[in-house]
Amino acid sequence: MTRIAVINPNMSVGFTEKVGLQARRIVAAGTEIVALNPQFGPASIEGYYDEAFASVGLLATMRGLEAEGASGGKISGYVVACFDDTGVDAARCLTKAPVMGLCEAALRFAAIVASRFAIVTPMAVSVRPLEHLVSKYGASSQCVVRAAGVRTLDFEGENADMAYLALKISAENCLAEDGAEAIVLGCAGMTDIADRLQAELGVPVIDGVSAAVKLIEAMGMLGLQTSKAGAYASPPVKTYDGIFAEFAPVA
Amino acid sequence: MTRIAVINPNMSVGFTEKVGLQARRIVAAGTEIVALNPQFGPASIEGYYDEAFASVGLLATMRGLEAEGASGGKISGYVVACFDDTGVDAARCLTKAPVMGLCEAALRFAAIVASRFAIVTPMAVSVRPLEHLVSKYGASSQCVVRAAGVRTLDFEGENADMAYLALKISAENCLAEDGAEAIVLGCAGMTDIADRLQAELGVPVIDGVSAAVKLIEAMGMLGLQTSKAGAYASPPVKTYDGIFAEFAPVA
Amino acid sequence: MTRIAVINPNMSVGFTEKVGLQARRIVAAGTEIVALNPQFGPASIEGYYDEAFASVGLLATMRGLEAEGASGGKISGYVVACFDDTGVDAARCLTKAPVMGLCEAALRFAAIVASRFAIVTPMAVSVRPLEHLVSKYGASSQCVVRAAGVRTLDFEGENADMAYLALKISAENCLAEDGAEAIVLGCAGMTDIADRLQAELGVPVIDGVSAAVKLIEAMGMLGLQTSKAGAYASPPVKTYDGIFAEFAPVA
Amino acid sequence: MTRIAVINPNMSVGFTEKVGLQARRIVAAGTEIVALNPQFGPASIEGYYDEAFASVGLLATMRGLEAEGASGGKISGYVVACFDDTGVDAARCLTKAPVMGLCEAALRFAAIVASRFAIVTPMAVSVRPLEHLVSKYGASSQCVVRAAGVRTLDFEGENADMAYLALKISAENCLAEDGAEAIVLGCAGMTDIADRLQAELGVPVIDGVSAAVKLIEAMGMLGLQTSKAGAYASPPVKTYDGIFAEFAPVA
Amino acid sequence: MTRIAVINPNMSVGFTEKVGLQARRIVAAGTEIVALNPQFGPASIEGYYDEAFASVGLLATMRGLEAEGASGGKISGYVVACFDDTGVDAARCLTKAPVMGLCEAALRFAAIVASRFAIVTPMAVSVRPLEHLVSKYGASSQCVVRAAGVRTLDFEGENADMAYLALKISAENCLAEDGAEAIVLGCAGMTDIADRLQAELGVPVIDGVSAAVKLIEAMGMLGLQTSKAGAYASPPVKTYDGIFAEFAPVA
Amino acid sequence: MTRIAVINPNMSVGFTEKVGLQARRIVAAGTEIVALNPQFGPASIEGYYDEAFASVGLLATMRGLEAEGASGGKISGYVVACFDDTGVDAARCLTKAPVMGLCEAALRFAAIVASRFAIVTPMAVSVRPLEHLVSKYGASSQCVVRAAGVRTLDFEGENADMAYLALKISAENCLAEDGAEAIVLGCAGMTDIADRLQAELGVPVIDGVSAAVKLIEAMGMLGLQTSKAGAYASPPVKTYDGIFAEFAPVA
Repeated sequence: MTRIAVINPNMSVGFTEKVGLQARRIVAAGTEIVALNPQFGPASIEGYYDEAFASVGLLATMRGLEAEGASGGKISGYVVACFDDTGVDAARCLTKAPVMGLCEAALRFAAIVASRFAIVTPMAVSVRPLEHLVSKYGASSQCVVRAAGVRTLDFEGENADMAYLALKISAENCLAEDGAEAIVLGCAGMTDIADRLQAELGVPVIDGVSAAVKLIEAMGMLGLQTSKAGAYASPPVKTYDGIFAEFAPVA
Repeated sequence: MTRIAVINPNMSVGFTEKVGLQARRIVAAGTEIVALNPQFGPASIEGYYDEAFASVGLLATMRGLEAEGASGGKISGYVVACFDDTGVDAARCLTKAPVMGLCEAALRFAAIVASRFAIVTPMAVSVRPLEHLVSKYGASSQCVVRAAGVRTLDFEGENADMAYLALKISAENCLAEDGAEAIVLGCAGMTDIADRLQAELGVPVIDGVSAAVKLIEAMGMLGLQTSKAGAYASPPVKTYDGIFAEFAPVA
Repeated sequence: MTRIAVINPNMSVGFTEKVGLQARRIVAAGTEIVALNPQFGPASIEGYYDEAFASVGLLATMRGLEAEGASGGKISGYVVACFDDTGVDAARCLTKAPVMGLCEAALRFAAIVASRFAIVTPMAVSVRPLEHLVSKYGASSQCVVRAAGVRTLDFEGENADMAYLALKISAENCLAEDGAEAIVLGCAGMTDIADRLQAELGVPVIDGVSAAVKLIEAMGMLGLQTSKAGAYASPPVKTYDGIFAEFAPVA
Repeated sequence: MTRIAVINPNMSVGFTEKVGLQARRIVAAGTEIVALNPQFGPASIEGYYDEAFASVGLLATMRGLEAEGASGGKISGYVVACFDDTGVDAARCLTKAPVMGLCEAALRFAAIVASRFAIVTPMAVSVRPLEHLVSKYGASSQCVVRAAGVRTLDFEGENADMAYLALKISAENCLAEDGAEAIVLGCAGMTDIADRLQAELGVPVIDGVSAAVKLIEAMGMLGLQTSKAGAYASPPVKTYDGIFAEFAPVA
Repeated sequence: MTRIAVINPNMSVGFTEKVGLQARRIVAAGTEIVALNPQFGPASIEGYYDEAFASVGLLATMRGLEAEGASGGKISGYVVACFDDTGVDAARCLTKAPVMGLCEAALRFAAIVASRFAIVTPMAVSVRPLEHLVSKYGASSQCVVRAAGVRTLDFEGENADMAYLALKISAENCLAEDGAEAIVLGCAGMTDIADRLQAELGVPVIDGVSAAVKLIEAMGMLGLQTSKAGAYASPPVKTYDGIFAEFAPVA
Repeated sequence: MTRIAVINPNMSVGFTEKVGLQARRIVAAGTEIVALNPQFGPASIEGYYDEAFASVGLLATMRGLEAEGASGGKISGYVVACFDDTGVDAARCLTKAPVMGLCEAALRFAAIVASRFAIVTPMAVSVRPLEHLVSKYGASSQCVVRAAGVRTLDFEGENADMAYLALKISAENCLAEDGAEAIVLGCAGMTDIADRLQAELGVPVIDGVSAAVKLIEAMGMLGLQTSKAGAYASPPVKTYDGIFAEFAPVA
């Protein structure tokens, strides 16, 4: 049976539930979704500093699932439910199961349905980190990044309408001025507005949560696992000290 | 219901059957596979010249399915079952359903399980066209292309063992000399040897047929369609003359 | 004697005549121009779909000339008179004579007279395919592509004045906003307006027809032929079926 | 007075001392070096997994210094004494003082004395992460990365001679086969062998510790500080939970 | 003792004095600055033509210093005090001492304090040459170039206020429209306005003179010298004729 | 009448004659070739240092021709007969006539007849400067540079046979190991061996002299002139001092 862990690396239980809900809505019958978040870390991820802390929470959560999996039910694949692909490279070192971030997944789907597209993300502070990801994934010539000028958590609660509107205006500018033919939602917390935005804009709107979950589900069905022959090899055994002692790599 | 057309753009019925078999083996229950090839065109695709003719056969086949789909059962998505991604851009102009080539799909899966990988293709004449695809898909910094020095059709019939051996040697060189951590099979006709090669090499071996079919299946489930807002817009209405008269774009 | 075939890959006899006229106007005494178009195919080329069909018509026309050449007069070189460089790579596989597309030729001349330049093309649907060509030819850092928002065939007949005006406005924007120092005409059908536009803009205006014809004429005089050592090797012998049977590669 | 914090992000006190010693050896009179390592984290940094944990230790250490600095003596600049530039982007968000990693610093110095150069790093698992850094810093066309095939900690203790020899052989291969004209030491722990290797190879050998310390010293003298106008803005205020509660960004 | 030659490659004694003043202001006690300009050449450097002549004056000046150094005091390093990095590659062939241009130095410092930045240069004619430098130094993805629309020499004398204002407006546009987080002064003659502009803009303003001098000072302290193993090898011995006879490379 | 100045920027009269001979051999009837070299400068051009001096000699020669042309016969276009494209950008500022270097011209012709090719140059010291040119001209993905290990002047006189042999071996290695499909001769002094090498290697061999002369001849016939709207604008008027006084830009 396919069992996908969708890990929201921030502490927002609301995000985790929203993301889990979306994941369950789109998987095939028989695919189980385990949605969870770390036991420690930042309330949201907005820029490099938050990312550094969230990565550790993500890895700690994965270690628990890997160990647990041996007795309970093995995880077939992991989705890191953050658009910054926080900790994805490190996570790939930790398990043979495939690991996917939202940005990588969304860019792949976008490139299938559009020759040019745009990421719309909440805050300006994320633009440059996302541009680095776009470059790393080889999409610089077809993807621009714009910020809507709202906080990540604004997509929940009383500011949600205002946040949606700001996002839509930013997306419309991408279509009008950047030649974008599709929109990529640059934050996991926007997963529930993809359908509405797609209907209103009339172009494909790609949600990274959906894209990553379906990709990992597909890879699980194909039996594809992370190569241990290079950069994603298991971390060499060594000691870790202090509050990280328990996270030391073991044989 | 999800109904995927897997079109082998060359005339080899053996290829078509092999590819169809593999596609059916990996889709979810409830996904129908329509495997077919054009009514006219080259026996195999080896380089730019064959590609040009195969593209037209592919498009003709798709037009039939699009029209037929209106009465019979609509196609949810298309896989162009050739590793040269022959005609994929043109095909995306012809339908709202998502269209996927093997090279693009395989590169996406390879990048998830490995930081560096290699395409192994049958003939040297395909190396440069594939390098152009690798560049187009933004993977030049992590992917090399090697030729095994055999003909495409050698993977069928009495030369199959020899062809497999040449392929394996070439793949081993990629692992030893190019730093590859995974191998991408650079021809649709190799789809049935992925498992054996993966077992023998001990690194992930990605088959483009499987990768593309699962991606298109996933996109169908998500309802993602090709954007008509830019380069993949429907072709402007005009007349076509002579033997192509019937293929003119219509409103 | 130098004998250049200028093949307009679409079915517009008006285009073919216009292009042939321009070619004859600029070659040296003693260079013969054979201007022709395929016997079948699209009325004009606007995007990926038309390109796929036009490529086959081009190749069919070239095969006729290659065969005929053996008895009549050998072709020294080919110009594919379309700015999308439709089928050029495939055409290079079909003959030892040098083959040139308009885009490649025009970009080379533009880079000699300007450090930055712009392609102005009729329709938006061509922007992305042309950007791919610009990237393939290594000119991305110095060339932008803009669309004038008119149809290709508008440059003939009663809309010609309006089309010219739209083109000129678009070119002026490139000079003012993109830092362009020269303009490249992004369509074969504009070949007769280069002089007027150059006079009115005061910067070099490069016409691909003229550029490609002169390059092929030069290569013929130097005796340079297409290398058969790699990607442009003659297509491997095989059967083609159906309406393409006669186009199968032969030894 | 210039006061530079050189933070070794791993737990090896030997590394910290070695790095501190080298830093003190090369700074101007009047520049104070504070060499320290985190209170928790991995014994060494070998690949993505270790990096994730080491980044947090680094940031925690910096927060202490920033707070302390207000009362004691303000830090003029930070050197992250790890060649993977672990956590450097996050660190730049945390302070106005300039922050420098070893890889970025060493590549800059190498490009001044050589048109092509090579990084020699201990383990193969670091090659791909370093290639990403080389690409991020824009040096891909002039820098290759090779692994010597030894562990990072081998450069201390009884294996040091063997490690040195492996490194030297690897460096010689870079000179002979890759066209390298200078060698960059790809690990902080090699800081004390630069002079010997330079003398034996006869080409410049760049040590990242020295390069980064001198750069940060120079920036301190010039009064250059990290821009807070974009990606390195202070992290938005929010809560952090669990063992990371104390590291939450504050106003 | 560290002895840095700061060579202004144009004939403006005012520039030379200004640049020398700034250099002396920022070096450590014990570092000697020799500021000078060639005995022949252009009054200022504005574009490719001036550069060609200024390079020769620079090299002639350096030859004098190298020879003189043998008897008097050896030069530890050279700064070419022109933002076009005029003749820097040739200069590196002429001496073992490290040689630094303003553009390279300024871009390195900018990348430490900002993830995106802009060069503001006096005249439009310099934009493209500077873009080539930005590309050569690998910073194209994070740096734009804008011209203020004033002459280089306007920064001296009665037009200095107007020139400053034009520069400031151009810099503000970079911050507002290009996402720049820091400003690089694109001309040696602006060295004395960096502090004022930084104070008024509130973001880091990098002066190439200061950056290059500090880098060369640092390299001198580290004993790093130009590699003679490749592109910067001493020029092969040969004769030079005419007015250049005395500049022939000698053994 | 078309009148092309072919300027060998070094002082070797033998080179100048050889280059002039080849130019006259390939131009159309009615095209006049003026072959000359500067009155001062290096005996040959091998690396950055020689280039700097040769550029000035080239520009001085061009100024003479431009002035003389006003009374005698105007120059239609210039060929800088050096494979390093020494001074070409500066030369384009000096005249409205088109200016062409050998490297740019040869790369354009190579890309027409081959998808991958190699430059073979005499000395290792030229490899890196040529790689910069290859990058500037956008051909990095299809062109490698190798050195034959001989001096430039060895192609004249008693060492010519040995030099030819070294060149041929180097070219064969490019075909066998780099996937090159054509060879570009990386020095003007090889212009007379292109035919022999092409016959012996069986692949296209491109000589930059021939390529540049034919390109400039073509541009003259088309009336294309250098844009004065940007980087190639006439140099701003100013004074030059000392031995360069006479070369100051005038209105």
